[in-house]
Amino acid sequence: MFKQFTIQAPLTAIEAELQQKIDGKTKPLGALGELENIAFQLGRIQQTSTPNVSNAKMVVFAADHGVVAQGISLFPQEVTPQMVMNFLMGGAAVSVFCEQHHVPLRVVDVGVNAELDEHPLLGDRKVAFASKDFSQEAAMSAEQVAQSIQAGVDEADLAIDDGANLLMFGEMGIGNTCVSSCMMTALIGVSATDSTGRGTGLDSAGVSHKAQIIEQSLRRAELATGQVMSEWSAQTLAEQVGGFEILAMAGAMLQSAQRQTAFVVDGFICSVALLFAQKVVPNVREYAIFAHQSNEKAHKMLLSHLSAEPILSLDLRLGEGSGAILAYPLIKSACIFLKNMASFESAGVSDSK
Amino acid sequence: MFKQFTIQAPLTAIEAELQQKIDGKTKPLGALGELENIAFQLGRIQQTSTPNVSNAKMVVFAADHGVVAQGISLFPQEVTPQMVMNFLMGGAAVSVFCEQHHVPLRVVDVGVNAELDEHPLLGDRKVAFASKDFSQEAAMSAEQVAQSIQAGVDEADLAIDDGANLLMFGEMGIGNTCVSSCMMTALIGVSATDSTGRGTGLDSAGVSHKAQIIEQSLRRAELATGQVMSEWSAQTLAEQVGGFEILAMAGAMLQSAQRQTAFVVDGFICSVALLFAQKVVPNVREYAIFAHQSNEKAHKMLLSHLSAEPILSLDLRLGEGSGAILAYPLIKSACIFLKNMASFESAGVSDSK
Repeated sequence: MFKQFTIQAPLTAIEAELQQKIDGKTKPLGALGELENIAFQLGRIQQTSTPNVSNAKMVVFAADHGVVAQGISLFPQEVTPQMVMNFLMGGAAVSVFCEQHHVPLRVVDVGVNAELDEHPLLGDRKVAFASKDFSQEAAMSAEQVAQSIQAGVDEADLAIDDGANLLMFGEMGIGNTCVSSCMMTALIGVSATDSTGRGTGLDSAGVSHKAQIIEQSLRRAELATGQVMSEWSAQTLAEQVGGFEILAMAGAMLQSAQRQTAFVVDGFICSVALLFAQKVVPNVREYAIFAHQSNEKAHKMLLSHLSAEPILSLDLRLGEGSGAILAYPLIKSACIFLKNMASFESAGVSDSK
Repeated sequence: MFKQFTIQAPLTAIEAELQQKIDGKTKPLGALGELENIAFQLGRIQQTSTPNVSNAKMVVFAADHGVVAQGISLFPQEVTPQMVMNFLMGGAAVSVFCEQHHVPLRVVDVGVNAELDEHPLLGDRKVAFASKDFSQEAAMSAEQVAQSIQAGVDEADLAIDDGANLLMFGEMGIGNTCVSSCMMTALIGVSATDSTGRGTGLDSAGVSHKAQIIEQSLRRAELATGQVMSEWSAQTLAEQVGGFEILAMAGAMLQSAQRQTAFVVDGFICSVALLFAQKVVPNVREYAIFAHQSNEKAHKMLLSHLSAEPILSLDLRLGEGSGAILAYPLIKSACIFLKNMASFESAGVSDSK
C-alpha cells in the first residue's frame, strides 16, 4: 500500500533567488516574520519566486468510530451524520469560513455510521459503517486500511487534476480525538495521559477515563506505549487503532506531496494524520503548512515533535478544517507580498545604513 | 484638549443575548476560542447580535522625529517620505494587504520632514516638518499637541461619516520606536532598558545607545522614570517626548471610541498610542481590538499591562498597520460565524449529553 509513495523533497536550487527577492522588499530584513517563512516554503514547493495559492480547495473527511461505545465523547455518534448535513447545507463553521474566502468545500464520507443522501458536495467513499471498537478488537481489516488511504489519494488527485494549488484537509467524526490520541501514543511513545485531552469538552474525570481506554486498547493490541516503537509498522498500527478519516487524510497528504502540492494541516487530529504519513514517507513534511495550534493539550507536544510553528493560536478546538481555512488568508498574504510588494530598488527607497 | 472626550463604555444589556447566540452555534462550547471573544466585543460595541465590519478603513499616519539626530535608527530620515510614496503607489506591505482585503488605505501626513506632492490617497494635516530633538528640548509646543490630536479626531470623523464600521490605524516615521519606548517608559514606569528594542533591526550596541538616549531625554524633560508618575499629565508628556503620528493615532482612537466604533490596534507603536489614549480616557480600551504581538520585546510587556490578547503572533516588526490588516479577515470571520452559522436547533444537530 505505502510503496506507491516516492515523495521527493523540493529542489533547493531556487532558494537563493527566493531569499534575495524576500529580502529586497521594502521592509526591514525579516520584518514580515512567519509570512516570509511561508513564502519561502511555497516558493520551494512550487519552484517559482511567485508562488500562488489562489486555487485552494477544502476536503473534509468524515467517519465514525466503534470506540465511542466506551463513552469517550461528550456528543452522541448521531452527531457525525448530522454535522455532515450541516457542512453540506452551509451552516457549519468550516462552511461559512470557506464561503468567506471563496474556497470550495467538499465532504467525503469514508465511514459515517449512517446512510447519507446524495449531494453535489458529498463524495461517497464509504469504507464501512464505522470502525470496530478498538478497545475490544482491531479497528479495521488490512483491506480497509488500504481503502481508507486510497480514498485520500483519490481525493487529492481529483482536486489537483482540477487545478488546485493548495489543499486543505479537515475531519469530522465523533470520538476522533480519542482515536488520534491513541495513534499518537503508539507513534511517538508518550503516555496516554500526555496525549489525551478534553476533546469537545470532557471534564477531568472524562479525560482520565479516555486515557484508560487508550491504555487498555494499546495493551489489547499489543502495541507498545510509553516508548518509541522499535519495529514500527504503519500497517499494523492502522489496523489496530486507526480511524478511516484519519487514514484518508494521511493518504491525501501523501498524494498531495507526491504531486508536489502544498497542503494545510489543521488541528490535532489532522496533525496526527501527518505524523502517521511522515512515518510512512518522511519527506511529506516538506509540503505541510501548519495552520494553528489548538487548545487540545497534546497538540502542542505533537507540534513540537514535528518542529512545526503554526500560523495561528486562537484557542480553537473545533476541527472540521476550521483552523486551516482561517489561516488561508494569511497564506495568501505570503504569496501576495512576494508578488506585489515593491523592492527598495523599484520604489526608490533607501536601504538601511 | 482632552476634555472633549466623554467616552461611554458599551451598554451591557445585550451581553446575555450575545452569549446565548454564540453558545447556540453548531460547535462545542467555546470551540471558536478568540473568535468568540471578538464576536462578543463587537456585538457589545455595535449593540447588535449581528455585528458587521465589512466597511473597514485603514489610516496610516506619518511623521518625522528630531531625535533621529542621535543615531537611534538604522534607516535614514529620508525613508519616511519615500515610504509614504511607496504606500501611495501601492508597493508597501500595508498597500498590498489592503488591496487583498479590499480595504481603502489613506495616508495622512502629520509631520513628515519633506514637501509631499498632492495625491488622492494622501491627507495633508502637517503639524511641522518633524518634531524637535527631545533629547535636547521639548519635542513640540502645546499647540502642536492639540493639532496632532485634532488631526486624528478629524480622520476618525471623516472615516465614520463615510460609513466605516471598523477603523484600522498604522504609522510610518523613522525613529518612532524610540519615541514610543520613551513614552511607554514615562507612562507605565518601566526602565528604558525594558522598553527599548531593536526597532527596524538595531544590534545590541544600538539598542543600548537608544535606551541611553531615552533616559537622557526623560531626565532632560524632568519626567519620572522607573516609577508610575503620580501626577500624570498627558499634555506635558506629549509636549516633552511625543510624536505627531503617535498623538494623531491616539486622537483617532479616542474619537473612534467616542463615536462607539471599534478600532484595531496594530503593533508596538500603535499600542503606545492606545496607552496614551487610555491615560486620557480609560474607556477607550473597550473599543480596541488587538491585532498582533510584534517581535519588539517591549510590546509583550505593554500588551500584558493592557491585559490584551492579540489575534496574531507572527513575529512581525514592520508597523504601517500591516498587522492590523493581516488580522482583518479573522475579525471578519468572527462576525461571519455569528451571523451565518447554524444553531443546534436550526440544523437539527444533537447537543452534548
